Amino acid sequence: MSLRPSRRSAVEPFIVMDVMRAAVDREETGAHVIHMEVGQPGGRAPRAVLDAARAAVEDGRLAYTEALGLRRLRARIARHYGEAHGIDVPLERIAVTTGSSAGFILAFLAAFDPGDRIAIAAPGYPAYRNILRALDLEVVDIPTRAENRHVITPDMLAAAHREKPLAGVLIASPANPSGTVMEPHALAALIGAAHDLGVRFISDEIYHRLVYEGIAETALATSNEAIVINSFSKYYCMTGWRIGWMVLPEELVRPVERLAQNLYISAPDISQRAAIAAFDATEELDRVRDGYAASRKLLLERLPAIGFEGLYPCDGAFYVYASCRHFSNDSLDFCRRMLAEAGVAATPGADFDRAEGHGYVRFSFAGTGADMAEGMARLARWLG
Amino acid sequence: MSLRPSRRSAVEPFIVMDVMRAAVDREETGAHVIHMEVGQPGGRAPRAVLDAARAAVEDGRLAYTEALGLRRLRARIARHYGEAHGIDVPLERIAVTTGSSAGFILAFLAAFDPGDRIAIAAPGYPAYRNILRALDLEVVDIPTRAENRHVITPDMLAAAHREKPLAGVLIASPANPSGTVMEPHALAALIGAAHDLGVRFISDEIYHRLVYEGIAETALATSNEAIVINSFSKYYCMTGWRIGWMVLPEELVRPVERLAQNLYISAPDISQRAAIAAFDATEELDRVRDGYAASRKLLLERLPAIGFEGLYPCDGAFYVYASCRHFSNDSLDFCRRMLAEAGVAATPGADFDRAEGHGYVRFSFAGTGADMAEGMARLARWLG
Repeated sequence: MSLRPSRRSAVEPFIVMDVMRAAVDREETGAHVIHMEVGQPGGRAPRAVLDAARAAVEDGRLAYTEALGLRRLRARIARHYGEAHGIDVPLERIAVTTGSSAGFILAFLAAFDPGDRIAIAAPGYPAYRNILRALDLEVVDIPTRAENRHVITPDMLAAAHREKPLAGVLIASPANPSGTVMEPHALAALIGAAHDLGVRFISDEIYHRLVYEGIAETALATSNEAIVINSFSKYYCMTGWRIGWMVLPEELVRPVERLAQNLYISAPDISQRAAIAAFDATEELDRVRDGYAASRKLLLERLPAIGFEGLYPCDGAFYVYASCRHFSNDSLDFCRRMLAEAGVAATPGADFDRAEGHGYVRFSFAGTGADMAEGMARLARWLG
Repeated sequence: MSLRPSRRSAVEPFIVMDVMRAAVDREETGAHVIHMEVGQPGGRAPRAVLDAARAAVEDGRLAYTEALGLRRLRARIARHYGEAHGIDVPLERIAVTTGSSAGFILAFLAAFDPGDRIAIAAPGYPAYRNILRALDLEVVDIPTRAENRHVITPDMLAAAHREKPLAGVLIASPANPSGTVMEPHALAALIGAAHDLGVRFISDEIYHRLVYEGIAETALATSNEAIVINSFSKYYCMTGWRIGWMVLPEELVRPVERLAQNLYISAPDISQRAAIAAFDATEELDRVRDGYAASRKLLLERLPAIGFEGLYPCDGAFYVYASCRHFSNDSLDFCRRMLAEAGVAATPGADFDRAEGHGYVRFSFAGTGADMAEGMARLARWLG
């Protein structure tokens, strides 16, 4: 008998990772690539984080921690909610995770059973869809519209729930790829609607503190029943450290702890120790964010001038999502050529939106300012 | 409506993690605890690994890697199979994972669909059972017997398959908690039986190189269809770094890559860079293993003298699994008292064997030699 892969492994690739692999392939041939595909900061982790990591290496005894994370890191995260949002979050409700990736898996496994229906926005972060499917959950795409700045509204949620009951809804603000920051009252209204419908609310807050327009409020300001997912990867510049956190409703703490014990044992010790210092690096990190703001300004000027259209809001995060229809209606092919011919890696919209993404491209401006300027120059030459 | 945890989150806790938490609670009150509960080396990662980590921190730009891992780490792992086993494994079949934990999740998701039946040995590593259940797979416990040294035999596998078809079988050699190292011909025979039955073979080889009696052969010597899971946590003393690897049959490489892109993005960059150096630390690591061998000798003498009975084989790994029936038939309560009254943390057998574990305790001898001697002295006083 020949053994085959499972049906559930037939999830879509996370296309950005395939682009990244193609970019590495090109670099190995000696070519120079400007990376605008992957959502990761071009800079180093802040000095305080590197110092803490250095101390951890000197100590040398990096071990399993408790499954929910080092208590002093959980306490520091709790304090952060007081400092940044004026909210009291007990450390008992905080789980340190191996990046937000683990946060999503733990949230989905703890809150939902196979066949449950979970609503997400289209366009949206592709791993939501693919993780949900791998864990036997049904993805309910809610196409968003320009007139309400590409967010899920209470009406849209209610309509999807009427069609067939939803078990959960997952939103991000700032969102990827749209960049939309939900206004606090809109976020509160959606949480209220989910609550009234008996639908679990999951709030992806990994782009908090990367906001150029508006205010990114935490779901915790409105609800103790929401699951909040956050990460040290974005604002804190710690992608490769694989470290993030969740804030859980009380009834999910022990289920998540049991799952985390078995599925992860613990997040990396060195990353946990280093992350504690990240909250004290605000000055340095705000300078990095100011750099993104300058790159954002550059892209919002240059991309339309080059011929990209229909730019999404871009209030926060570090992406410009724009139509490439002026050049191509097959963004997968367009991005392949952009890498091969212009030496710029970007992510085709198909990664974010199966229905409409073939006409869109996502540019990440998380790289260095110099790289972003060079990327724009290369695109202008290539398409000019 | 009140929202509840999912049914599938009702997995058992990984009890050893709960014991670890109780031990930390005790230590926070100022008590001194000898840790014999958790399977992690008492020493630091080897010098070469710490040097590589230091260099990675100096570089500072720790980023996402390709989902299957840094190519130079995959190449180094491939070379290891040549050096240690005389086997040619192409780097394309190697996936770097966030500890063996991620290896199990990726293997189960890539190879099996919901409802599939997977056979494991009892007693065995509890996270097997709990991860399988969380991923909607059916666990088929095969109780093992002393007369064949607590391994699954081809006859046992065939019998379980006759009852109702199996999709997979997962074994470890050296095993946890039994310590049994399967003789190469017995391992090959079991792989052959699985192959003949059309049952996917998964070989957990995380305790390789920690062998005191016999020879631990890799499943790759017999089969290119087996999934092999390994880790830098045990022999290489890198638990807290969360880094491991898989060797995959060709048809599972792309499914695992797609799943890993979405579920993990990548393993921690610093741990990947550090792990490359682990293969060059053999002299230092063999000295650590010699320390375990001395502790093993101590425990195999002392535990029976104190009154523990029916010790399992202990050919490899770093555990003694022994009956505590002389003292108690409730090992959960017995271990709780051992921690509170003797200041020794050990893991109740219920973690490894739901049917018979109530009469057993697992002692890890991965701690320092001094700690192990002190642990034995405390137990002798407490039970004397």
